[in-house]
Amino acid sequence: MAGNSFGKLFKLTTFGESHGVAIGGVIDGCPANLALDFNAIQEELNRRKPGQSSIVTQRKEPDTVEFLSGIFEGKTTGASIGFIIKNTNQKSKDYTHIKTVYRPSHADFTYTQKYGHRDYRGGGRSSARETACRVVAGAIAKQLLEHVSIQAYTSSVGDIFLEKPYQSLDFSKTESNAVRCPDPEVAQKMIAKIKAIRKEGDTIGGTVTCVLQNVPIGLGEPVFDKLHAELGKAMLSINAVKGFEYGSGFCGTRMKGSEHNDLFAPDGSTKTNLSGGIQGGISNGMDIYFRVAFKPVATIMQEQTTIDSEGNTVKMQGKGRHDPCVVPRAIPIVEAMAALVLADYYLQHKIYN
Amino acid sequence: MAGNSFGKLFKLTTFGESHGVAIGGVIDGCPANLALDFNAIQEELNRRKPGQSSIVTQRKEPDTVEFLSGIFEGKTTGASIGFIIKNTNQKSKDYTHIKTVYRPSHADFTYTQKYGHRDYRGGGRSSARETACRVVAGAIAKQLLEHVSIQAYTSSVGDIFLEKPYQSLDFSKTESNAVRCPDPEVAQKMIAKIKAIRKEGDTIGGTVTCVLQNVPIGLGEPVFDKLHAELGKAMLSINAVKGFEYGSGFCGTRMKGSEHNDLFAPDGSTKTNLSGGIQGGISNGMDIYFRVAFKPVATIMQEQTTIDSEGNTVKMQGKGRHDPCVVPRAIPIVEAMAALVLADYYLQHKIYN
Amino acid sequence: MAGNSFGKLFKLTTFGESHGVAIGGVIDGCPANLALDFNAIQEELNRRKPGQSSIVTQRKEPDTVEFLSGIFEGKTTGASIGFIIKNTNQKSKDYTHIKTVYRPSHADFTYTQKYGHRDYRGGGRSSARETACRVVAGAIAKQLLEHVSIQAYTSSVGDIFLEKPYQSLDFSKTESNAVRCPDPEVAQKMIAKIKAIRKEGDTIGGTVTCVLQNVPIGLGEPVFDKLHAELGKAMLSINAVKGFEYGSGFCGTRMKGSEHNDLFAPDGSTKTNLSGGIQGGISNGMDIYFRVAFKPVATIMQEQTTIDSEGNTVKMQGKGRHDPCVVPRAIPIVEAMAALVLADYYLQHKIYN
Amino acid sequence: MAGNSFGKLFKLTTFGESHGVAIGGVIDGCPANLALDFNAIQEELNRRKPGQSSIVTQRKEPDTVEFLSGIFEGKTTGASIGFIIKNTNQKSKDYTHIKTVYRPSHADFTYTQKYGHRDYRGGGRSSARETACRVVAGAIAKQLLEHVSIQAYTSSVGDIFLEKPYQSLDFSKTESNAVRCPDPEVAQKMIAKIKAIRKEGDTIGGTVTCVLQNVPIGLGEPVFDKLHAELGKAMLSINAVKGFEYGSGFCGTRMKGSEHNDLFAPDGSTKTNLSGGIQGGISNGMDIYFRVAFKPVATIMQEQTTIDSEGNTVKMQGKGRHDPCVVPRAIPIVEAMAALVLADYYLQHKIYN
Repeated sequence: MAGNSFGKLFKLTTFGESHGVAIGGVIDGCPANLALDFNAIQEELNRRKPGQSSIVTQRKEPDTVEFLSGIFEGKTTGASIGFIIKNTNQKSKDYTHIKTVYRPSHADFTYTQKYGHRDYRGGGRSSARETACRVVAGAIAKQLLEHVSIQAYTSSVGDIFLEKPYQSLDFSKTESNAVRCPDPEVAQKMIAKIKAIRKEGDTIGGTVTCVLQNVPIGLGEPVFDKLHAELGKAMLSINAVKGFEYGSGFCGTRMKGSEHNDLFAPDGSTKTNLSGGIQGGISNGMDIYFRVAFKPVATIMQEQTTIDSEGNTVKMQGKGRHDPCVVPRAIPIVEAMAALVLADYYLQHKIYN
Repeated sequence: MAGNSFGKLFKLTTFGESHGVAIGGVIDGCPANLALDFNAIQEELNRRKPGQSSIVTQRKEPDTVEFLSGIFEGKTTGASIGFIIKNTNQKSKDYTHIKTVYRPSHADFTYTQKYGHRDYRGGGRSSARETACRVVAGAIAKQLLEHVSIQAYTSSVGDIFLEKPYQSLDFSKTESNAVRCPDPEVAQKMIAKIKAIRKEGDTIGGTVTCVLQNVPIGLGEPVFDKLHAELGKAMLSINAVKGFEYGSGFCGTRMKGSEHNDLFAPDGSTKTNLSGGIQGGISNGMDIYFRVAFKPVATIMQEQTTIDSEGNTVKMQGKGRHDPCVVPRAIPIVEAMAALVLADYYLQHKIYN
Repeated sequence: MAGNSFGKLFKLTTFGESHGVAIGGVIDGCPANLALDFNAIQEELNRRKPGQSSIVTQRKEPDTVEFLSGIFEGKTTGASIGFIIKNTNQKSKDYTHIKTVYRPSHADFTYTQKYGHRDYRGGGRSSARETACRVVAGAIAKQLLEHVSIQAYTSSVGDIFLEKPYQSLDFSKTESNAVRCPDPEVAQKMIAKIKAIRKEGDTIGGTVTCVLQNVPIGLGEPVFDKLHAELGKAMLSINAVKGFEYGSGFCGTRMKGSEHNDLFAPDGSTKTNLSGGIQGGISNGMDIYFRVAFKPVATIMQEQTTIDSEGNTVKMQGKGRHDPCVVPRAIPIVEAMAALVLADYYLQHKIYN
Repeated sequence: MAGNSFGKLFKLTTFGESHGVAIGGVIDGCPANLALDFNAIQEELNRRKPGQSSIVTQRKEPDTVEFLSGIFEGKTTGASIGFIIKNTNQKSKDYTHIKTVYRPSHADFTYTQKYGHRDYRGGGRSSARETACRVVAGAIAKQLLEHVSIQAYTSSVGDIFLEKPYQSLDFSKTESNAVRCPDPEVAQKMIAKIKAIRKEGDTIGGTVTCVLQNVPIGLGEPVFDKLHAELGKAMLSINAVKGFEYGSGFCGTRMKGSEHNDLFAPDGSTKTNLSGGIQGGISNGMDIYFRVAFKPVATIMQEQTTIDSEGNTVKMQGKGRHDPCVVPRAIPIVEAMAALVLADYYLQHKIYN
């Protein structure tokens, strides 16, 4: 109820602040007998962790996951899977300077208003550090969905867009550059853009596109729990996300029905796929694709005027090492959340088949 | 679990097919002692019902709600509120011609694949008729949130856009025209567009913008149940919706942090509001605004090629009276879903205050 | 959240007061393609309804269920199943005499304290009339669990006990007498007891035993959602229930481990079954049996002293036609709740197999 | 869904096997600003831990709780509270001898059937060690319910019964003896009984009575989520529990309505309290009291015949240090579960007031 759980049948509950002892989570509902590839899980965490390239924050956090339960002899047992990720450098910093300051476009003001008492160190619970736990659970969900392909990539940084349709991209190149754009040429432009922005002490937004392939037909529930509605919620729950669209998305609003309708081929596939692989909230076997909008990171290295908790006007400037653009590190998070949604519906679908 | 419920504390469960005896729902969790304005509830239904203007479907359905429980002497009792809306003309039609045909971009194929057995009459459970129940519950939620203003309006039809910011609009004019656009001039263009499209036997998409004002500070839960994540899910659960963005939305991805950050005024309000009234998933007291993308209606009056359940290629053409553009009738539905989300968080917020 | 739903995957939500227009419910999660036996459903309702024999209340209520959705051509479609049961004689009575009086051991006082405003007619939402909706849903759950046998019977009325173990009983005789005790001799004593009590204007308690046979191995979830914990909750949610025990129950507390342990036979069955068919919260394939305690009905035909809502001492006496003993009519309700619990775990179990 | 969570608004999710690295849990929904008494939490754990007296298992486990999140400067922040309890001696033992043996009246058989793959070390997830996490969460719930008194005590061991009504007991003496019976004389008999049983290599059952005082009026939800139904589920979810009764319980089934009804005093209290403080599922301000039945511990130090996973008959005998009677150590667990139930309804009640 208080917002720290996601999923119904494949359910993740997370805890932990950026500067506490550890963050962690519990996965409840993972079927027994799934042989886990622990390296693959850690690899997903490594894709998200700070310090992995020159265009992301240079903080050092090893982000090593430790599983505490639910796994025996390398396989899941059906019991709840508890895990923690220790915060390795949480004690060294001094946060008194931001203790009473409301950073613009952060959650400082709203958390203080809502809870009265908050852990102000490094954003506390509102820190994106929490997403590491999603990546752990998502990596397990991916292994459960072994035949499904989940591919996210950076499709824009500021006004640098990757215009090509996903069908023409070589996803094996996504990890070959720091910005995680599968087109090497556009990737270089994006990287240059991010470096220029960082030099200004500023930040920039961007979009992530995600493609889900080989999703079984029939995932999703009608009415309120449509597959795309849950995907949308999952994406919008990621820090800094401002928008979600799937299939034809906002562009589809300018189309006519005669242009937009996906006609069927005799085998039940559709000749076009403006529907984005989902009809009536249920997967139809075609590719599912969607786009997620990320705003620019709120912490900038320029001086800003803000207020403190008593309403005094104060000057502040970002300290420490922050991301100039959140998008490259968001790729594994988008994939993880997509995997969690699919795993949940996959289990749900098994009930009725 | 099977998708027919929305909300946790103010919870709506719906049932009913477009051509069964009746549709209806149960609202569980509405606080006791709320004096209901029944005319206001019916009025919301009337805004959604078919046949209300020349640019919507000309079907006749009175859509009269009958409350069966949970209300005594005009006030809620705290018990579950059951209600039905009878389907008045459900018996007259012959649906055998679509029994085995998969209409393009409808849910016929996915429902058949998922359930094996489906009520094919008029779309059955996948029909947008189901949204009438949401409007009933949303109308009660609105009455619970008496100080909150919820205003949706048509912000585009095809490529006709209402470019003005919402602050410059006079919401009292939204209901003054058939398309529900508060700018009379743009409204006329939209209406002309819809009429032209209908003449072609075609349909067109559009967008709805919704503004929530006087929302208390502190609504929303962190991490997975952020206020905008739930609003997004609510909107994406409405038939024909392909996208959702709030605050700066997709445009925000092209901005720099120094441009996008909302600086605080001494009273805790913000000088700009690109955040869209929500920070860290929690309302900050500023206006909440978001935009919803609707695709063109799939049923068109032109001949289309499709397949039947045995994979035979067949020709089909839409029959009956359908909407050329779903947006005007979607306005009360968007408002209703927004009200349901707010009511749920409003009750959730009372727990901790 | 507000208590009107039961189950997670096979979920019933109910509404309705005893003297409103109708009571009803929604079943969400029933798999598609279940061919329903409507006579069997109505038959279960008839077992619960008033006026069926000389030892139960002589009120006349036909209790005819009307299904509104989720069923097409006699089979479930996977959509939510809405149903209503009209209250046929709700308008005739005058309840002003109990409007402000708190009947002893009824919910009048607590409802008034909790909700402020309540429907006082005939107990409103706290009336056992609500259980008719459980019987409808339970009858469908029984049909889903076609191989499982669910047999409840009256095992005591006051101090008249059916001492025989369930294994020696002929369940086909349960319906052959008005008290629903499968031993005709004991049944006659129970009936005589109830008649004597009624003559005094008094009421009497009793117990129901229920036996579940052919339950698949593996139903139930560990830790908090143990099968017997959910059965216990289900039974304790029935009006007038004060206790629940399964297997050896309270008697088992006086035994030694060496007496109580159920030793295995080579085929995995157990030679004794003090465990009651459940080990570690999960069904083991042996018979599940439990016992439910019902207090005497609170409405008696004798004068009692009580208070009104202003604390004035008043005299009151039961009016109308009430049950002298709730147990005979509780049999189908106990069975229905057991069926709902099993159906939920049955679907849950399908996820992992 | 998979059974590792309890509660809706004050929600505990647990993980961990008896012989893994650690057990732990997440509490989601605890209001912010609760100043925690950490000694009191550890004290509750100490009441449950092994080795605390001569009549319980002599295993040594310090059971020290470590909080990882949700607490800052000694107070809750409203964020999820993660905690772990390390298993200190989990590596030393050899469990190969029970790897394939199904211990009688344990969960070995059912877990193997349900999950295929299980952590057989020390009972794995089915071990009562898991209840330590309940005690941690319950201790925090108790602090949230500062005015409520929750008092459990041993009311029988085998056929040694504490016959006195709870009103005549001095609860301050409960902790003064090893069996946790507030009557010192009866306590000595119980202790002697347990010692004699242990000498035989056997075990014995017993009952726990629990009294909840100063519970606010109005806790509990109607219909399915009655306060006593949830208390019953909570108690039945504890390992070894076979029954639950509240108020007059099973004895009440032999009473007449005229004897059983609780007449009101002018102040709204009742002159008797056979209802057990709950009417219509909602607390009425009177003491809530209930009784819980515990079977004898299944692990005995006598030789038993059982089977292995291939159906071979094998001899086995309990090893290690086990409890001869579970009841003394169950007292804090019963209190913890009662506190969790009350905390959940307490938060739920705040929604509507």
